[in-house]
Amino acid sequence: MMTDRTTRVVRAADIAGTLVFAIEGALAAANAGLDPIGFMVLGFVTALGGGLIRDLLIGASPPAAVGDWHYAVVVLVAASAIWIARPEADAIPSWLLTTLDAGGLALFAVAGTRKSLDYGLHPVPSLFLGTISGVGGGTMRDVLLTQVPRVLRVDVYATAALAAAAIVVLGHVWRLPSRGTAIIAAAVCFGLRMLAVHYGWQLPKGI
Amino acid sequence: MMTDRTTRVVRAADIAGTLVFAIEGALAAANAGLDPIGFMVLGFVTALGGGLIRDLLIGASPPAAVGDWHYAVVVLVAASAIWIARPEADAIPSWLLTTLDAGGLALFAVAGTRKSLDYGLHPVPSLFLGTISGVGGGTMRDVLLTQVPRVLRVDVYATAALAAAAIVVLGHVWRLPSRGTAIIAAAVCFGLRMLAVHYGWQLPKGI
Amino acid sequence: MMTDRTTRVVRAADIAGTLVFAIEGALAAANAGLDPIGFMVLGFVTALGGGLIRDLLIGASPPAAVGDWHYAVVVLVAASAIWIARPEADAIPSWLLTTLDAGGLALFAVAGTRKSLDYGLHPVPSLFLGTISGVGGGTMRDVLLTQVPRVLRVDVYATAALAAAAIVVLGHVWRLPSRGTAIIAAAVCFGLRMLAVHYGWQLPKGI
Repeated sequence: MMTDRTTRVVRAADIAGTLVFAIEGALAAANAGLDPIGFMVLGFVTALGGGLIRDLLIGASPPAAVGDWHYAVVVLVAASAIWIARPEADAIPSWLLTTLDAGGLALFAVAGTRKSLDYGLHPVPSLFLGTISGVGGGTMRDVLLTQVPRVLRVDVYATAALAAAAIVVLGHVWRLPSRGTAIIAAAVCFGLRMLAVHYGWQLPKGI
Repeated sequence: MMTDRTTRVVRAADIAGTLVFAIEGALAAANAGLDPIGFMVLGFVTALGGGLIRDLLIGASPPAAVGDWHYAVVVLVAASAIWIARPEADAIPSWLLTTLDAGGLALFAVAGTRKSLDYGLHPVPSLFLGTISGVGGGTMRDVLLTQVPRVLRVDVYATAALAAAAIVVLGHVWRLPSRGTAIIAAAVCFGLRMLAVHYGWQLPKGI
Repeated sequence: MMTDRTTRVVRAADIAGTLVFAIEGALAAANAGLDPIGFMVLGFVTALGGGLIRDLLIGASPPAAVGDWHYAVVVLVAASAIWIARPEADAIPSWLLTTLDAGGLALFAVAGTRKSLDYGLHPVPSLFLGTISGVGGGTMRDVLLTQVPRVLRVDVYATAALAAAAIVVLGHVWRLPSRGTAIIAAAVCFGLRMLAVHYGWQLPKGI
C-alpha cells in the first residue's frame, strides 16, 4: 500500500516534527515551573499526540510512536536536554519558539496527510487527518495545562496546517511527484504561519 | 456480523446525528466568537468525537467518520452554512438548540449501542459505549473550551442516553425487531431530555 | 504471544486496579457534589481510561475494558456502593484515599508495562505505556473537572509509575520470573508514592 519512498518521506518528516515539538513541549514545562517528569510528560504529549491520534484513526497498528522506539528516544533526549539547559531557557528568543512551532506544524501536517492517503483514505478525511496530525499534540498539551488550545485561540494556525494538507491531497489526486509536493506543502504551511505571526494576520471573527 | 438492515439503521442515525451535532458545534463557535476554522474544529469535534471513540473501542477500523467521506462532508457543509448565517445566529431560539441537541444525543446513543452489539460486544459494555457515543463529542467540545462538560453539569443528560442504550440492549437480548426498538429508544431519550429541560428535572446530588 | 500465566497476572492486577480507581473516581464525584450519573462517569473514566489508552496503543482490539464485561460491572458496583455510602464519605480519612490511589497506580503501571511487553513492544515504548496506564485514568478525570492533572501537579506520581515500569522492563530484559518482578515493581511504586506523601518529597522544579 505504501511505497518505500513515501514511507521514508513520512518517517523522516515525522521524526523531525517529533524532535521540534518535544523541545517545544519541554519549554512549556519550563515556563510552567514543572519538575523533570513534567518535562517528559509535556514533551511526549506535544510531540507524539498528533501522530498517535492519526495512527489510531487510520488503523496503523501499533502506532508509529509506539511500534518504533526511535520516537520515544527522541522525546527522552530532547526533554532531558531542555531540563539540563533550563537555566538558559529564559534566554530563548520568542522568534525561535515560533519558528520551531511552525516547523513542527508543517512537518506533521504533511506527514499526516501523506500517511492517510497511503493507507487508502479518501481525500476529504485525509485533509482532516493531516490537520489533526499537525495540531493534535499541541491541543492535548494545552488541555492538560487547562488552557483553551491554540487551535481555537490563534489565527492562521489550523489554517496553515489545512493549506499544507490541501496541497498534498491535490498533488496526490493529480499524481504529481510526492516528494516535491511534500516540500512545497511544508514550505507553504511554514511560510503562512510565520507571515501570520509577523504581520498579525487575523481571520474574520464570528461575532 | 452485521446484517445489511442494522448497518443501514446505524448509518442513517449516525449521519443524521452528525448533521445535528455539527450545527450545534458551529453555533458554540459562533457564541465563542471564533474564526471560520474554529467553526470547523468545534463542528468536527462535536459531531465526530463520540462516534470516533466508539469505533476505536469496538475495533471498527478505520472508524466510520474517517473511512466514509460523507461524514466529513456533512460537517464541512454544516459548519460553512452556520458561518455564513452567523449574523442571524443570535436569532436562533434556545428551544431550537435544545431540541437539536436532544435529537443528536438520541440518534448517537441508539446508533452507538446498536453498532457495539453488532460487533459482538457484551450488553454491559454496549450500554457504556452507547452512552459514550451520545455524550462523547459534546464532552470533547466542552473540554476544548475549558468548561466542565455537560455530562457532569447537566442533569438527565447521560441518563437519557443511558435509557436509550438500555432499551436497545433489552430489545437485542429479547430478540425484538431492531428497527422498532431503535425508534422507541430514540424517542424515549429525546422525550426524557426535552421533559427534563422543560420541567427542570434534577437527579439527587451527592452532597 | 502471551502465556497464560502473564495473561492472568495482567488481568488480576487490572481488575484490582479498576476497583480501586473506580472507588476513587466516585469519591471525586462525591466531593464535586455530582448526581449518580456523575459518580458513574467519573468512576468509568478514572478506572478504565488508562487501560483503554494502553490497549488502543498496543493494538489489543477490542480493549479489555470493552471486550471483557467484568471491568464495566466492577465499576458499576463500586460507583453504586459509593453513591449509597456517600453520607459517610466525609468520614473517609485522607490516608485511605492516598493509599487507594497509590495502590491503583502501582497495579496499573505493572499491568500496563507487562501487557505492552507481551504484545511485543520494545522496552522503551513499554516504559512509556506502563506509565500512561497508571496515570491516564486520573488525568482524564482531572481534565473533565477542568483541573491541571495530578501528573503535572504532584511530585513523585508519574515518577513512581515509571519506577515500576522500569523494574518490569528490566526483569523482562534479564528474563527474571515475571510474577516476582511484578510484585517487587508494584511494591516499589506503592512504597515510593506513600513515602513521598508522608515526607513531602519533591523533585527539583524547572524554575
